[in-house]
Amino acid sequence: MVESTPVVWLDGKESAGQPFLRLSAIDNVAVALRTLKPGEELSLPAATPDQEATTVVVAARIMKGHKVALSDLNKGARVVKYAQLIGVAAEDIKSGEHVHSHNLSFINNDTAYARNAELKPETIESSDTFQGYKRADGRVGTRNYIAVISSVNCSATVANRISEAFNHGKLDDYANVDGVVAFTHGTGCGMDSAGEGFQNLQRVLAGYARHPNVGGVLLVGLGCENSQIAGTIESHKLATGPLLRVMNIQTTGGHVKTIARGVEIIESMLDEVGSIQRETCPASALTVALQCGGSDAWSGITANPALGYASDLLVRQGGTAVLAETPEIYGAEHLLTQRAASDEVAAELMNRISWWQDYVARNNGSLDNNPSPGNKLGGLTTILEKSLGAVAKGGTTMLNGVFRYAEQVDKPGFVFMDSPGYDPASVTGQIASGCNLVVFTTGRGSTFGSKPAPCMKVATNTDMYRQLSDDMDINAGTIVSDGDSVAEVGERIYRRLLEVASGSVTLSEGHGLGDHEFVPWQIGATM
Amino acid sequence: MVESTPVVWLDGKESAGQPFLRLSAIDNVAVALRTLKPGEELSLPAATPDQEATTVVVAARIMKGHKVALSDLNKGARVVKYAQLIGVAAEDIKSGEHVHSHNLSFINNDTAYARNAELKPETIESSDTFQGYKRADGRVGTRNYIAVISSVNCSATVANRISEAFNHGKLDDYANVDGVVAFTHGTGCGMDSAGEGFQNLQRVLAGYARHPNVGGVLLVGLGCENSQIAGTIESHKLATGPLLRVMNIQTTGGHVKTIARGVEIIESMLDEVGSIQRETCPASALTVALQCGGSDAWSGITANPALGYASDLLVRQGGTAVLAETPEIYGAEHLLTQRAASDEVAAELMNRISWWQDYVARNNGSLDNNPSPGNKLGGLTTILEKSLGAVAKGGTTMLNGVFRYAEQVDKPGFVFMDSPGYDPASVTGQIASGCNLVVFTTGRGSTFGSKPAPCMKVATNTDMYRQLSDDMDINAGTIVSDGDSVAEVGERIYRRLLEVASGSVTLSEGHGLGDHEFVPWQIGATM
Ligand SMILES: [Ca+2]
Ligand SMILES: [Ca+2]
Ligand SMILES: [Ca+2]
Ligand SMILES: [Ca+2]
Ligand SMILES: [Ca+2]
Repeated sequence: MVESTPVVWLDGKESAGQPFLRLSAIDNVAVALRTLKPGEELSLPAATPDQEATTVVVAARIMKGHKVALSDLNKGARVVKYAQLIGVAAEDIKSGEHVHSHNLSFINNDTAYARNAELKPETIESSDTFQGYKRADGRVGTRNYIAVISSVNCSATVANRISEAFNHGKLDDYANVDGVVAFTHGTGCGMDSAGEGFQNLQRVLAGYARHPNVGGVLLVGLGCENSQIAGTIESHKLATGPLLRVMNIQTTGGHVKTIARGVEIIESMLDEVGSIQRETCPASALTVALQCGGSDAWSGITANPALGYASDLLVRQGGTAVLAETPEIYGAEHLLTQRAASDEVAAELMNRISWWQDYVARNNGSLDNNPSPGNKLGGLTTILEKSLGAVAKGGTTMLNGVFRYAEQVDKPGFVFMDSPGYDPASVTGQIASGCNLVVFTTGRGSTFGSKPAPCMKVATNTDMYRQLSDDMDINAGTIVSDGDSVAEVGERIYRRLLEVASGSVTLSEGHGLGDHEFVPWQIGATM
Repeated sequence: MVESTPVVWLDGKESAGQPFLRLSAIDNVAVALRTLKPGEELSLPAATPDQEATTVVVAARIMKGHKVALSDLNKGARVVKYAQLIGVAAEDIKSGEHVHSHNLSFINNDTAYARNAELKPETIESSDTFQGYKRADGRVGTRNYIAVISSVNCSATVANRISEAFNHGKLDDYANVDGVVAFTHGTGCGMDSAGEGFQNLQRVLAGYARHPNVGGVLLVGLGCENSQIAGTIESHKLATGPLLRVMNIQTTGGHVKTIARGVEIIESMLDEVGSIQRETCPASALTVALQCGGSDAWSGITANPALGYASDLLVRQGGTAVLAETPEIYGAEHLLTQRAASDEVAAELMNRISWWQDYVARNNGSLDNNPSPGNKLGGLTTILEKSLGAVAKGGTTMLNGVFRYAEQVDKPGFVFMDSPGYDPASVTGQIASGCNLVVFTTGRGSTFGSKPAPCMKVATNTDMYRQLSDDMDINAGTIVSDGDSVAEVGERIYRRLLEVASGSVTLSEGHGLGDHEFVPWQIGATM
C-alpha cells in the first residue's frame, strides 16, 4: 500500500441498500453497483473517528462498475481505491463526478518504484494454531500423501498405474495416509538440459519430492531421458532412503515389472508413512498459495481483497503468503516494489519483470496488461487499477522476498514467486515452492483442485457461487450481494484455512480432484 | 536414396558367423560386429548376379560398430552404407582399411540438395487388404474409440472422470467399441491465441476429433479458456451432431454436473458407435506413423532400415508412411530433398528447417545433430551417417509431401510431418495428422503406447528385446544376432501391421497403455 494511513476495510453494510461500494476508509472513489443517475444522493457514514458522515450527490451518469468521486479531487491528487493508489487526477474533479480515462491519469515515473520507507514489518503475534503433521526435519504438513513422481512423460503411465493400485481399499488400514498420488506431466525429454525450462522442471520435481505434505516418495523414470532422476537427486540434495525411492523402467524389465515393483515399494512405505499423527502447530507453519483464475469484474472488488485480508491475518501470525502470476502484475510492478522489505527484494522483482519482457519478446508474443476496451467499458481505468485486482490477494504487508518459479520459499511473511498466470502451471510452482495450502479465487468459475496441497475456492460473485455449488468453498460475492465487509469475508477465509490445514476437506478435495493438474511450466524449445 | 541402382537389401545370413554386417548390395563399407584385427579375412559372397564373391583382408584394428572398406575407394569416391551416401573418401582408401573421420568427409554443397531426377514414383499394386472400419465419409479406421477431449487443462479432470465411468463393465455390450478415452493435456490457456503453439493445439484437437479411429467425440471445456471449443469447431470445420458433442463446465453447473452429463452423452452414443462392423479394406487405407525413441547404436542398422523396408512395401500398396522428428534429420535434410517429388516439396522441407533454426535460436538453444564424441567412438562418422539412422525408417521411395505438425496428411506415399523428436509430442502430431497405426523402434527400450492409433514396438537389439519382453512386439535385433535380413524383418513388420490394422492387439494395447501420452507440442510463452 502506498498510503501510510492504516487501512480500515469498510463494512459494506454501511451502504446496505445503497448502490455503491467503498472498500476502505481511505478510498476517495467508490464503485457503482448499478447505474447511478445525476442528482442521486449517496449517503456516506463516517468510517473512522476522524471522518465525518457526508452525502455525495451524483453529478453525472455513472455506469455499473465505474467510479464516482467521493470528495473534491484537485488536479494532481492521488486517487485511491482498495486503499491503493490507482492514478492521479488529470484535472480538478468534483465530488460526485465520474472518474475514468477522461480525468484519471496513470503515473509511471521512476519514483513510483521507490520503496515506501514508512512501511514497517508486521508485529508477529503467534496465537493461532492448527493440527498438522510435524516432519522429522521440522517442516509441517497439512496432509500426508505418498507421491509417485514421473521424471518424464515416458514413465507417466507406469507412475499412474502404481498409484491406481492403491485406489480401491488398499489404504483402508491407513487412516492417516491421504492417498498415493501420481504426479505426471508432458515433458522431461527433448529439451535443453542447460536451459531454464529444465531447471524449472528439476525444481518442481524436487519440490514435490520434499513437500511437507508428502510422507513417502517414489521417483520413476524411463532411463534414457534428459531429466535423469540421479541428476535431480544430486542437484537438489535429496536423500534417498526407505521413504524416498527411485526406479527406472529400462533397468527394471519393462512397464509390467516396474509397476509391480513400484506397488511393492509403496506397500513397504505404508506403515511408516501412516504412523504419523497430527499435533498442534502454530499458524506460522502455514504457507499459502494465493491464486486467481477465470477472473471477472468482481474479482478485484470482492474475493481478492478478502483473500488479501486473510493473507494479512496469516502474515501477522508469522505465516507465509505466496503471491505469483507475474503477467497479472506486469506494468504495475511498482505496486509491489513500493512494499519491498529491501532494495534487493525490489531489484529482484524488477529482474523478473525484465526476464518476462525478454521471454515474451523472444516468443514473438506480447504481454499487455493494460485495460482492454472491455475492461474500460466495465469501469477499469488504469493498468494500476487492473493489476490491483490481482495484487489485492497479497494484502497490505511488506514484501519479504521474491523467488524463482518453484524455488523453495524460505522467508516468512508476504512473498512473491515468479510464474505464469496460467492456473495449473502457477499452482504447480507454488506447491513445489512449499505451499501447503492453496486459496483460489474465481469469477467465471474454475473447478481447479490440487494435490498434495488442498485447494479451497472462493467465488467472487453470488450468482456463480450458487450455480457452481459443488465447487465453491466460500462466497466472497456476499460483499456485494449481502453487504458483508471485506474484513468479514477475509476473516472467514482465514478461519476456514486453519480448519482445512487441520484436515477438514475442501470441496475439490472431497471430490478427489488434483490428479491431472500437475503442470510444470515449460520454457524453451521442445526438440 | 542417392544411387539410382535398385537397392538389394542383403540377407545377413551371407555373413552368418562372420564378424561384419553389410546391409545392401551397393554398400562399399560394412559395420564390424566385434573388433576386427589386421589380417582377418572377411568373406563376401556375390550379392547380385553382376557381383563376384571376394575376400576382404582387414588392414587395421577396427572397433565394434566401426566401418571397414569393402573395396578400394579413390579419393573423392562416394562412400555408401545402408544404400545411402554417407560422405566421400578424403584420401585414397584401400580395401580392408578403417573408414572414419580421418579419411571420410562430409559433403555439403548446394548440389547435395538437388532432387534426384532419376527417382520415379512407385508402381502401385493394390493387392493387400485388412479388416477395417469404413466411416461414412470414406475414411478408414483400424480401431473404434469414443474420445473425450479437453480443450484446456482446466477440464482435464472432468474429461478423465467421464471416460473412467466406462472402465468397469459399461462397455461389455459393445464389442466393437474399443474404449472411451480421455485426451487431456497441460495447455489450452495462458497462451497467445495468435501464435503457432495455439495453432498446433487447435490442429491436434481437431485431428483427434476427426480421427478415423474415433467413432464418437465429446469436447469438454471450462468456458473461459483461450482454446475455445467453438473456435476449434469453426476454424477446423468440424460438424457437431449426435456423435460430436460439446460442453463447458461453467455453463453446466460445475464439475459434478458436467461429469454426469458427459456420461449421459457418451451413453447416448454407444449404440450408434458400436454398430459399425469391420470390413475388407485395401492396405492403401493405412497411414502409418514412423517413430523412434530411446535409440541406440543398432537403431540405424536393424530396426530403422527394417521399418523402412516395411514403409516401402506399404507405399507400393498405395498406403502412406509418415516420417517426422525434424531435429533427427537436421543437418542432413538433403537426404530427403534428394527424394522430393517436386521442387515445391523440397522447398517446403527447407522452410521447415529454417523455421527450426529460428525456433531453437530464439529459445537460446542449439540444434546439433553432428555425431557426438560418443557417437564417433561408436563408429558414426558424419552427420549424414547419423541422420541416416533416423531417415532409414522412411525407406527409399519418393517424398510426396511435407506437412506441418498435426496437419491432415492428404497425400499417399512417403511423406514428412514436422515435429520435435520427443516421442509423445511427435506421435501426438502424427496421430492428429491421421495416422491410424504407429510403429515405434527403440534401442534403450521405450514402453510407449498410444490411442486411438495402436502402437507396435520394434526392438533394435536382442538383449533389450528379451529384457523388455512385455513391451516389444517385434525383434529387429535378429538382423545382427540371428543373421536375419533387413528384408525379412521388414516383411515381418509389414505383415504384423496388417494384422494389427485388422484388430489384433499390440503389446502396449493389450496392456491398455496410451492414456497419458497425449502431448500436444507447445510452442511459445506460457503467460
Ligand atoms: Ca485413508
Ligand atoms: Ca497424473
Ligand atoms: Ca491464475
Ligand atoms: Ca489423460
Ligand atoms: Ca522420437
